Amino acid sequence: MTIALIPIPGLPLVRPGMDLPRLLGDAIEAARVGLKDGDLLVVCQKVVSKAEGAIVPLADVEPSPLARTIAAQGEGERDPRVIEVVLRQTKRIVRNDRGHLIVETVDGWVCANAGVDQSNGVDDVTVTLLPEDADRSAERIHSALQARTRMAIPVVISDSFGRPWREGLVDVAIGCAGLDPLSDLSDEGDLHGRPLRHTVLAVADQVAAAAGLVMRKGSGVAAVIVRGAQYRVGRGRARQLVRAAEFDLFR
Amino acid sequence: MTIALIPIPGLPLVRPGMDLPRLLGDAIEAARVGLKDGDLLVVCQKVVSKAEGAIVPLADVEPSPLARTIAAQGEGERDPRVIEVVLRQTKRIVRNDRGHLIVETVDGWVCANAGVDQSNGVDDVTVTLLPEDADRSAERIHSALQARTRMAIPVVISDSFGRPWREGLVDVAIGCAGLDPLSDLSDEGDLHGRPLRHTVLAVADQVAAAAGLVMRKGSGVAAVIVRGAQYRVGRGRARQLVRAAEFDLFR
Repeated sequence: MTIALIPIPGLPLVRPGMDLPRLLGDAIEAARVGLKDGDLLVVCQKVVSKAEGAIVPLADVEPSPLARTIAAQGEGERDPRVIEVVLRQTKRIVRNDRGHLIVETVDGWVCANAGVDQSNGVDDVTVTLLPEDADRSAERIHSALQARTRMAIPVVISDSFGRPWREGLVDVAIGCAGLDPLSDLSDEGDLHGRPLRHTVLAVADQVAAAAGLVMRKGSGVAAVIVRGAQYRVGRGRARQLVRAAEFDLFR
Repeated sequence: MTIALIPIPGLPLVRPGMDLPRLLGDAIEAARVGLKDGDLLVVCQKVVSKAEGAIVPLADVEPSPLARTIAAQGEGERDPRVIEVVLRQTKRIVRNDRGHLIVETVDGWVCANAGVDQSNGVDDVTVTLLPEDADRSAERIHSALQARTRMAIPVVISDSFGRPWREGLVDVAIGCAGLDPLSDLSDEGDLHGRPLRHTVLAVADQVAAAAGLVMRKGSGVAAVIVRGAQYRVGRGRARQLVRAAEFDLFR
């Protein structure tokens, strides 16, 4: 079955306190593509963070000595206040080299700068954080869409992360609602009827990556409908995608 | 713009020596979706490996003492001959724990079992390897399609890999031809016209992940047309996606 990745344009510039689920519903209606049973909705982290007020005005930030030290390490000058915001979102510093910070966030995500972002910000003196609980954010959008449309449309909140071993960013799921983010195919068997061992697909991440092809930075598209994809309906959370250190053979 | 992920069914069971580029061309014709300028073609590694004879009959394999030791470690019994095949594809053992092997392949990919696969095999006594040079394999398909259709359709060869930090497999590019696998958006600017720093997307990996939603194991679909995606035409190779250890802050 052909899968369609349908951009939903027409979201206004999102500001703190705005009702994002309603804005998304309006934008989907305005896009005249409707919603169909089986559709998924992928929403860019940035608009979720903005709507939830996960924004820090840099003027309010007093950088710690550690933040000042790290900011001074890089070749380019980094704003020590931004580093301070990153450190406040950090549970563990994975790597700190030449001004770059790879950290484990308070939520367990391993990413650059704890997902703190300056580009596409509301203005030059604020940064956005990851949503406080992106699974809950996804659940809120999922419920609001269900109330509005009477359809249970799974929601994935995506962000672009770097990765070990491989160059370049890919979009991954940091929040989800209404689906099982990990699809265990072990019992489905292959073409010859043999069981597929250890075949657990990160469906939510694949969906996020697919939507990322549409939701390119600078495009102004912050939401994408994925139509026709196979997934399992469920009450899964994106946190299930965080691999426990003791089982992480890839590190 | 809406992106379509179009399955190309109808490939026969591929055996060594078969002309895969021709079979793909035939299957695309039979699918009656045509090819359009701007389309990409994603092909599953498994059919590429089979067509190229990247297959090892286990009867011919004499396991080394190291392979026997590793095979005996796991909870389940692993075939020491399979481990031996894995080790022969290996440049470095990243992790060897409870019978699991994460390695760096001779090509620089970090993955489980060096990409050696028993499921979906031709039969129970052979395993498939990764293609010897998947960039060259992609180039061959790209050229054959160009000769046949007069269109330069970029080709991505995909495989499902596990990853550090995150649970579940995602599809990634292990070979490509006709496109730039890494799209550097640094000079495009954001909505406010500010430059987007350090924004290099792994477009080939996003395309592979998107196609992976269609090319589910057990579906029998080994090729997908991606229609409507943005990418840069180029002579890039998937090996550019291998991050040099000294720049890999995520490890």
